[in-house]
Amino acid sequence: MTYVTAGKEYARDSRYLTTRITADGRDGFPVEPGRYRLVVSRACPWASRAVVVRRLLGLEEALPMAVAGPVHDERSWTFDLDPGGRDPVLGIERLQEAYLARDPGYDRGITVPAVVDVPTGKVVTNDFARITIDMSLEWTAFHRPGAPELYPAALRPEIDAVNEVVYADVNNGVYRAGFAGSQEAYDAAYARLFARLDELSDRLARSRYLVGDTITEADVRLFTTLVRFDAVYHGHFKCNRRKLTEMPVLWAYARDLFQTPGFGDTVHFGHIKQHYYRVHSDINPTGIVPAGPDLSGWLAPHEREVLGGRPFGDGTAPGPVAPGERVPAVVP
Amino acid sequence: MTYVTAGKEYARDSRYLTTRITADGRDGFPVEPGRYRLVVSRACPWASRAVVVRRLLGLEEALPMAVAGPVHDERSWTFDLDPGGRDPVLGIERLQEAYLARDPGYDRGITVPAVVDVPTGKVVTNDFARITIDMSLEWTAFHRPGAPELYPAALRPEIDAVNEVVYADVNNGVYRAGFAGSQEAYDAAYARLFARLDELSDRLARSRYLVGDTITEADVRLFTTLVRFDAVYHGHFKCNRRKLTEMPVLWAYARDLFQTPGFGDTVHFGHIKQHYYRVHSDINPTGIVPAGPDLSGWLAPHEREVLGGRPFGDGTAPGPVAPGERVPAVVP
Repeated sequence: MTYVTAGKEYARDSRYLTTRITADGRDGFPVEPGRYRLVVSRACPWASRAVVVRRLLGLEEALPMAVAGPVHDERSWTFDLDPGGRDPVLGIERLQEAYLARDPGYDRGITVPAVVDVPTGKVVTNDFARITIDMSLEWTAFHRPGAPELYPAALRPEIDAVNEVVYADVNNGVYRAGFAGSQEAYDAAYARLFARLDELSDRLARSRYLVGDTITEADVRLFTTLVRFDAVYHGHFKCNRRKLTEMPVLWAYARDLFQTPGFGDTVHFGHIKQHYYRVHSDINPTGIVPAGPDLSGWLAPHEREVLGGRPFGDGTAPGPVAPGERVPAVVP
Repeated sequence: MTYVTAGKEYARDSRYLTTRITADGRDGFPVEPGRYRLVVSRACPWASRAVVVRRLLGLEEALPMAVAGPVHDERSWTFDLDPGGRDPVLGIERLQEAYLARDPGYDRGITVPAVVDVPTGKVVTNDFARITIDMSLEWTAFHRPGAPELYPAALRPEIDAVNEVVYADVNNGVYRAGFAGSQEAYDAAYARLFARLDELSDRLARSRYLVGDTITEADVRLFTTLVRFDAVYHGHFKCNRRKLTEMPVLWAYARDLFQTPGFGDTVHFGHIKQHYYRVHSDINPTGIVPAGPDLSGWLAPHEREVLGGRPFGDGTAPGPVAPGERVPAVVP
């Protein structure tokens, strides 16, 4: 597949389906347990945000999840991990079918996360930035007891401000480096990325979490990029000033989150590596998937407790991962 | 250019021109100061061995050197760094010309290092493994005072044994990983490489140098691969279990050598990165050259002195690099 345009910067197509699922149902899609299906790939950092937030909030039963396989083609993510290659609830082989059900002329990205309305089989939204916020603010009636406040009102301006620069320079910044169509575009993306990581490192040297003293949406968004850093962004996307393992503050911060229930227990490194190295054939034409990196360090002590903070605030950690949603252990 | 053959292991063409330059001139090419020209690229690990050995032995005046540019095309290394794009002594633009002068039907690799007979303009030898040994054993009349013994008689069996496994699993092993045409071939090369690096790390945890207590040919051969490890082999060749900087013994060993006169002062990281990332277009089609890694660690203390050893044995370190042969500082 083609991601790089010679001579050009990478520009993400950010025209999403922005219908919202809300408590009051003002867009025609009220929050309703079991009515929707969250379609994700564990390879994808944008989808993985939703997987983390869903688990932190205990929405597993209210909002069931379909996991697409790590490798897709030009047209679609597919349900090749499921028996018969079909999602057992939606009955479709390709996520594209749910996008075309929504709009037969749909010609934009078939992206994850996507929330599908099960009765009609139509995608409601793929607006990834909104999906997790709405899980926090609209699905409250179905949160588990002890669910943390990931987007508390008092902190929203600060969370939004952090998210904005983290998105531009880090979450999307790694893609701007990896899919750069010119040396100049790459160099600029690299400089922005590492300048921002330096700034975030300074911030996190003093504070256990990005905003306030508990986990918030801001940490979820940074985590899903950091957890992929050494596995795919460092080599495949050439974000190689240093590995995450060589950035002590960010590495300890990422390990702290990884070891917090709801984060590392959603991460499938195999899916991540398979996806990036096999799908982006214009930057890895051989399709060979690296055997590294050694992942055992993710379980090493992080010693971030000395900074204080209470990961779940007045809430509690989520319980064990549901049997059908377990990922392979990071160290077999 | 094409290096990967789908479905196949990488197989190096090792049919070299094996004419030797010897003290007794038995192949018709006697050692003679100023008669030959050593053609290298500072990008190439095989050529870089000869650059290191030449400097350690003080052969700069006896055996002048031509440095080709880091990027070549299907046909040849070229002298694009020289005024007018021609080597000032040989008068040629492309190293290929010296190979064709030797054999108009020459159809094998135009490789460096190559030693060219200046009067005839013909390549004498490109047998890289022999070139450095002959510098040590045949060019003795022109060694500098205090030149080290890099291939001492008593240690040859052990040096040869180390060189053999280092060549197969490490020097050439990184290429077998990087140019693998199948996942299986890559996985096998990766496993062999890191198993051997583990074994070398154990050995070097107890001993400052690979064989005996001074620098030998064995150290030169391992060094030229290790110094390229994080810059090109880790990402571009997918040798990514860990970076060299994450292998403490090998990293300290490599830094020790890097900081020893004759090693690091021959290394041009810019040429190394330009070469691998721009020439191997079948594994890096965009041609974009990574900005990383951060190289400043190469100058950090190595603390290997505690293991004893005398780098130059009864000899001395070489003096400053000749003005025309300087490389950019590792940290600008």
